[in-house]
Amino acid sequence: MLTNHTNTEEESLHAVKSARSRSEEIFRAAAEVITVKGFDATSMNDIAKAVDLTKAGLYHYIQGKQELLHAIMDYAMDAIEQEVVAPALEVSDPRERLRLIIWNHTHLLTNHGTHVSILTDEVSALTPAHRADIVQRKRVYLNFMRETLQQLKDSGQMRDLDVNVTSLNILATVVGMARWYNPEGPKSIHEIAEHTTSWVLNGVLADPS
Amino acid sequence: MLTNHTNTEEESLHAVKSARSRSEEIFRAAAEVITVKGFDATSMNDIAKAVDLTKAGLYHYIQGKQELLHAIMDYAMDAIEQEVVAPALEVSDPRERLRLIIWNHTHLLTNHGTHVSILTDEVSALTPAHRADIVQRKRVYLNFMRETLQQLKDSGQMRDLDVNVTSLNILATVVGMARWYNPEGPKSIHEIAEHTTSWVLNGVLADPS
Repeated sequence: MLTNHTNTEEESLHAVKSARSRSEEIFRAAAEVITVKGFDATSMNDIAKAVDLTKAGLYHYIQGKQELLHAIMDYAMDAIEQEVVAPALEVSDPRERLRLIIWNHTHLLTNHGTHVSILTDEVSALTPAHRADIVQRKRVYLNFMRETLQQLKDSGQMRDLDVNVTSLNILATVVGMARWYNPEGPKSIHEIAEHTTSWVLNGVLADPS
Repeated sequence: MLTNHTNTEEESLHAVKSARSRSEEIFRAAAEVITVKGFDATSMNDIAKAVDLTKAGLYHYIQGKQELLHAIMDYAMDAIEQEVVAPALEVSDPRERLRLIIWNHTHLLTNHGTHVSILTDEVSALTPAHRADIVQRKRVYLNFMRETLQQLKDSGQMRDLDVNVTSLNILATVVGMARWYNPEGPKSIHEIAEHTTSWVLNGVLADPS
């Protein structure tokens, strides 16, 4: 009976996991179609084709195109929270925290693809309620960056730079990578993360050595 | 006769100038409508309304929506060539040239508005021929940035950073400003240009002092 129970739990955990990975697959493929064709020009049919589903099959996962766009952005913001913010919260030294934020944000590109990230700029296609939700989640990330720089400034480790302008510039850098990163390019994601982290930190720190 | 001739020349120069400034006004207003509503959701009617013209009046300036999108991007790339690249070409010292590129690129935001710049990412809505044209113009700008960094590297003035990755990161920074700059914000465009230039250069230069 206990074994049976555990089996069922394992099975349902497996079912949840594979449903999640199928959703992720759909989000990534849909994000690619939408960023290449444009949101309005993309039909549910185009997306169904890209993920090898019938249109009816796709509607099993998602209610419609606008829902899908919001779900993709939510997925992108979840990734930032879980893979960038959460580990950075564990680091109390602001210099190491800033390094980790940039390092992990860069690695989102290979973890989730570039299209998901590019799509988060398309807030104008969302419903007003969804737009407010995504804008708010972006603001939380910006504030986390601001607090990290403020802590560097307060401890005398930062050059004479404005915290707000510099936070916005650093975010533009990491978000902007999605538009130029090419998985077929000559540099690995680790090398790109290293050169970017080095440039950002040398620009920010009063004593970078 | 001579006076008459000069008058006519002056008049036609004036006519050319005011036609150009009317086109610029249309490009800026149209770029705002398109970035807020999205390209597909924007009608020629919406644009005509925004620039206080009848639809027929608007067609006097522009053949159609896709033509207009390409004309706006051309206008944005013209501004980069004339206000960023041309003055920077006059500067032989790569350190001063890099400083001037970032300074002048930042000032495009107040010279031409943020929406024109944001719109240059919307290449997917262009015809293939127009897309190739804009992508090529962007590549020329990137190469100019690369050459400037390569010159810094060759003269031993650059930190141990990859020229290509760093050029792409710097471009993402200056292009990204259009998405966060707020003319009503607490910092002037000069202050923003100063803090951005300082951060970028300190990150790049082996001996920033």
